[in-house]
Amino acid sequence: MNARTFYDLMKSTHESFTYIAGPCAVESEDQVLSTAAFLSSLGIPILRGGAFKPRTSPDTFQGMGEAGLKLLARAREETGMLVVTEAMDVDHLELVSQYADIIQIGSRNSQNFELLKRVGRIDKPVLLKRGFGNTLDEFVNSARYVSNEGNQRIILVERGIRTFEQSTRFTLDISAVPVLRERVGFPVIVDPSHPAGKARYVKPLSMAATAAGASGLMIEVHPEPSKAKSDSEQQLNFKQFEELKNEVDVILNATGRTILRFQEA
Amino acid sequence: MNARTFYDLMKSTHESFTYIAGPCAVESEDQVLSTAAFLSSLGIPILRGGAFKPRTSPDTFQGMGEAGLKLLARAREETGMLVVTEAMDVDHLELVSQYADIIQIGSRNSQNFELLKRVGRIDKPVLLKRGFGNTLDEFVNSARYVSNEGNQRIILVERGIRTFEQSTRFTLDISAVPVLRERVGFPVIVDPSHPAGKARYVKPLSMAATAAGASGLMIEVHPEPSKAKSDSEQQLNFKQFEELKNEVDVILNATGRTILRFQEA
Amino acid sequence: MNARTFYDLMKSTHESFTYIAGPCAVESEDQVLSTAAFLSSLGIPILRGGAFKPRTSPDTFQGMGEAGLKLLARAREETGMLVVTEAMDVDHLELVSQYADIIQIGSRNSQNFELLKRVGRIDKPVLLKRGFGNTLDEFVNSARYVSNEGNQRIILVERGIRTFEQSTRFTLDISAVPVLRERVGFPVIVDPSHPAGKARYVKPLSMAATAAGASGLMIEVHPEPSKAKSDSEQQLNFKQFEELKNEVDVILNATGRTILRFQEA
Amino acid sequence: MNARTFYDLMKSTHESFTYIAGPCAVESEDQVLSTAAFLSSLGIPILRGGAFKPRTSPDTFQGMGEAGLKLLARAREETGMLVVTEAMDVDHLELVSQYADIIQIGSRNSQNFELLKRVGRIDKPVLLKRGFGNTLDEFVNSARYVSNEGNQRIILVERGIRTFEQSTRFTLDISAVPVLRERVGFPVIVDPSHPAGKARYVKPLSMAATAAGASGLMIEVHPEPSKAKSDSEQQLNFKQFEELKNEVDVILNATGRTILRFQEA
Repeated sequence: MNARTFYDLMKSTHESFTYIAGPCAVESEDQVLSTAAFLSSLGIPILRGGAFKPRTSPDTFQGMGEAGLKLLARAREETGMLVVTEAMDVDHLELVSQYADIIQIGSRNSQNFELLKRVGRIDKPVLLKRGFGNTLDEFVNSARYVSNEGNQRIILVERGIRTFEQSTRFTLDISAVPVLRERVGFPVIVDPSHPAGKARYVKPLSMAATAAGASGLMIEVHPEPSKAKSDSEQQLNFKQFEELKNEVDVILNATGRTILRFQEA
Repeated sequence: MNARTFYDLMKSTHESFTYIAGPCAVESEDQVLSTAAFLSSLGIPILRGGAFKPRTSPDTFQGMGEAGLKLLARAREETGMLVVTEAMDVDHLELVSQYADIIQIGSRNSQNFELLKRVGRIDKPVLLKRGFGNTLDEFVNSARYVSNEGNQRIILVERGIRTFEQSTRFTLDISAVPVLRERVGFPVIVDPSHPAGKARYVKPLSMAATAAGASGLMIEVHPEPSKAKSDSEQQLNFKQFEELKNEVDVILNATGRTILRFQEA
Repeated sequence: MNARTFYDLMKSTHESFTYIAGPCAVESEDQVLSTAAFLSSLGIPILRGGAFKPRTSPDTFQGMGEAGLKLLARAREETGMLVVTEAMDVDHLELVSQYADIIQIGSRNSQNFELLKRVGRIDKPVLLKRGFGNTLDEFVNSARYVSNEGNQRIILVERGIRTFEQSTRFTLDISAVPVLRERVGFPVIVDPSHPAGKARYVKPLSMAATAAGASGLMIEVHPEPSKAKSDSEQQLNFKQFEELKNEVDVILNATGRTILRFQEA
Repeated sequence: MNARTFYDLMKSTHESFTYIAGPCAVESEDQVLSTAAFLSSLGIPILRGGAFKPRTSPDTFQGMGEAGLKLLARAREETGMLVVTEAMDVDHLELVSQYADIIQIGSRNSQNFELLKRVGRIDKPVLLKRGFGNTLDEFVNSARYVSNEGNQRIILVERGIRTFEQSTRFTLDISAVPVLRERVGFPVIVDPSHPAGKARYVKPLSMAATAAGASGLMIEVHPEPSKAKSDSEQQLNFKQFEELKNEVDVILNATGRTILRFQEA
């Protein structure tokens, strides 16, 4: 099953639910392959992982670049998972789209309108994150920059906004789920890892997002979070992710949701 | 069962869950008694309703005052429900505490420190709302103003904070549930009505709060919301509340939570 | 000249400018009298100083209470300055109004509506601070709670709002000056000390507020800020305040503003 | 005098002040040439004007593109003013840098790290706007993405942040001026037009920014604002701009600042 077919399934099955998981950044062959193997063993259909990383400071790890994309492609070959990874720039876009099944546009590029237009002309699903300083009106307009160019396969991701509260890294705007669902027909998923900022808050935010009606979750998972080159505090280890999935599945099952798994063509 | 006993049950039973519901403001005998009758028929143990209303503008309905408190007392007599109502000021406190089983301190008084101290010397449970401009650190300190005076029966209420997002009236800070749970031993409940601002968002926010681990929900319910003298857009009618409760109960049952009902002594 | 006459002068002289200065909290006879002597030597007409202090934590210094009010009264006798001090609660109001020339309502009480109504029935000017979580619409409505009760002598104070920016304690909303000036006829002054949070930012914020058209400044000054029992980082010492005043005066003089000084009756 | 020399003058003369003005967007030959003629007659050294416009909605005017750049070049030839215009994307960068003297990176691209790196390799001054959802720490890091690549000629622009206050389009963070000045050696200027959102607030914000120590102002000016294709409410007409400049000049003169004018080589 390719990503377009998978996307259409996500969208057509109103009560469907999709897990996306994987490391913040691709760091090594061992890291990404072991994570993919673990996730696919749980039936997770989509692997996330950044090869180009938008980092606040220029002195921090900026991603492996094309070498990282190649590792993601190997993980796909070995597991059959679909791969989502970020294109930070129009110049990366061609390269990223050669490797990715789903192209991610990050929060800091949510109003990079030229990038939005370009990805609107590519025939692959787009995972568009809300800018952490953007209103929902602006977010919907950003999606329109993509869809106006022809690409209608858009996944919207609420990932937290900037507020005065500093106990968490960002404030998850859980209301975005019902508000976006009534304004657009695209699947709306939640990234609980970035607003949480700390691993121990990821599970309750995941439960909340699921119960609020999100079409899926996108979660950072790493074999050894304390050694991660980015976002080490918020990534889950395998055991934590499995526990999270078990508890989220309870809600999904109780509320009659269909968990989408990767299926061979 | 009196309110202190009920509170101790809320707190001791770690997985307990409590519904609090009722109109924004007490408006008439018929309104409050019919609402109480409906809610008690669903097993809701606590009736909310404001007799003194903190309104942004001095030109709007300010509440019925003591007449409203008397109507709440009648609703208690007729149904056996416990009553929670707001004391806006130290001067109201004695009066309110004659009628209320649980004393509410509203969002706008979350740092009215003299009021917090006074309610800390009363032997009734206190329902303390987070100030919409307050951090969780400040909220925890406000609770300490109460507990330092002796009153340890505190219920904390997350009810949304001020952010740049204007699609909803406030932004429900869903992360407050796990953050507060790790910082204090008090029950943490969620008011989904005020952040929603619109009735149709109350259910998804309620689902989210429940799944995130809230110890309860506090929801505005009115026999005829369009005729309400305050918060008319966000109050649920009876049918909407019953639907909400049914769906929230599904999550509670699936996750092994105990729904506290009013029980005769 | 009493406070009512002074207020009327502030309001009638459109281009007038008033300095208010003094310690965050009254801490000792020596502290308050030496500060008052210094400020009056510069012609500052109004002395600020808190006797009842609204503190986030119950474990910190809560103010000297009535003993502090008495010290403020002595400072007035010795210097002829007018005294502004905060009433945190309706129960303090009678006591505070016996000593204060101008009654301050603090940021945390900006929507303590009962307190606003009560101070609206007192025949003394009221200095009303904006709640740090309140919109300007709400602030104007809070002023109407006072004026609706009869007291038209209101001074509005912009003192910073809560935002995601953490380099300063609060974000001074400098736009509040022109926005409020077009909405109400009351003098609008700025407290630069609280948004600054650090002494070195107080002067540029003061310059900005003055140039934006504020009717005055309210600044925390302490003989020895490092030993202050509250807000020690943001209080100015005498030398810093004098430098600030000199630079602000340059702007006032250049723009044709009239600096109000205390004048014997 | 070329832009590099001008920049070095801005930076070396600590008390220098630079006006930048011009239309939000280049709309026609007549519009841009008449505006440039007017501004140069006042001695304004730098003309702003967008040829590529980052617009929230894809359905609104997106700028004239290269035709707009050519009009800016003509305005430069006719007046000798330096031209600053925005590059929205790495693909525009080469084109924009052929025409612009100073390259603007807009608020929505403040964390478009690839664009920042590319502009860091061009030997022209960069005018970098703060992202409206970005902290000052992040803003300083964005500047480091530029300077790390070699380009040290950076002008930082505070242009308002997202807050809960909706009376103005954004909240001008006036404190950014002193905070940035102590953290970096680059000139810090203020754009009062975008936070104001309305023409009548632009002057008080300009006065505030100047008095707070900003190294300059960047102001939207249009021959006929009501007919502008973007930002029509906040652009000043010629008369309004001249009045603003006169009043700001009073502060500059009183505080010993040097107003930089365009000077022939």
